[in-house]
Amino acid sequence: MNPMLDVAVEEARAGLAEGGIPIGAALFASDGALLGRGHNRRVQDGDPSLHAETAAFRAAGRRRDYRSTIMVTTLSPCWYCSGLVRQFGIGAVLVGEARTFHGGHDWLAEHGVTVTVLDDERCVGLMEEFVAARPDLWFEDIGEVR
Amino acid sequence: MNPMLDVAVEEARAGLAEGGIPIGAALFASDGALLGRGHNRRVQDGDPSLHAETAAFRAAGRRRDYRSTIMVTTLSPCWYCSGLVRQFGIGAVLVGEARTFHGGHDWLAEHGVTVTVLDDERCVGLMEEFVAARPDLWFEDIGEVR
Repeated sequence: MNPMLDVAVEEARAGLAEGGIPIGAALFASDGALLGRGHNRRVQDGDPSLHAETAAFRAAGRRRDYRSTIMVTTLSPCWYCSGLVRQFGIGAVLVGEARTFHGGHDWLAEHGVTVTVLDDERCVGLMEEFVAARPDLWFEDIGEVR
Repeated sequence: MNPMLDVAVEEARAGLAEGGIPIGAALFASDGALLGRGHNRRVQDGDPSLHAETAAFRAAGRRRDYRSTIMVTTLSPCWYCSGLVRQFGIGAVLVGEARTFHGGHDWLAEHGVTVTVLDDERCVGLMEEFVAARPDLWFEDIGEVR
């Protein structure tokens, strides 16, 4: 059980229930307070800029200092979302799984971000089923042309 | 004269007139057709996720293939926006200036993106004046804690 990851998983499931891509994220303060949560909204809003991490970051509003914050995401962050973490100096990233997609988390670790990669079966299951069912949406979401 | 950069400069000036951070961007197709344009909206919308490049990307809507697109921005893209370019495979980036801020454009060039850096005096002037007047907003916008 990981209550921070549980919030991100809830977000991923909410996205799936809306017909969207099941990736969720949440930004927490170091004391465990939730700052913002969100999920991928490409399908729901027709908005390619709202990945789960950017949705959670947006929901947290304007802040001056992210060094002690923790970004929790169900899936390894893509370059776009990894760039977000690096630019804003988010101190730690908790990744639900990196089995179905390996994004930029190694790069973040090299640049001083505390990265923890779990291998959460719920997260793996959500992505495996979704990618099998809707590969078109998944590849669109990561800009992969097939 | 660079008509693609001119659109980004117009966006930057529109943002400044709204009381915002004067950075503008636009996404073009290879034939010169405008796909989306936008500017930094941190102040206007209270939204830290809308940098100029992500605003232009968002305005362009859902697309399957960015390889032949050109992202034009008044300022060197930060890691967040550079990550966007890399993840979605945007083929080319035209940077108005990289004198007041040096972001991730070298990294993009190393990863196959066609990068052109101009040293446009309008872009330099907009940022120099803004950073001198509102360093608090500028440093907040790039996650720099001072």
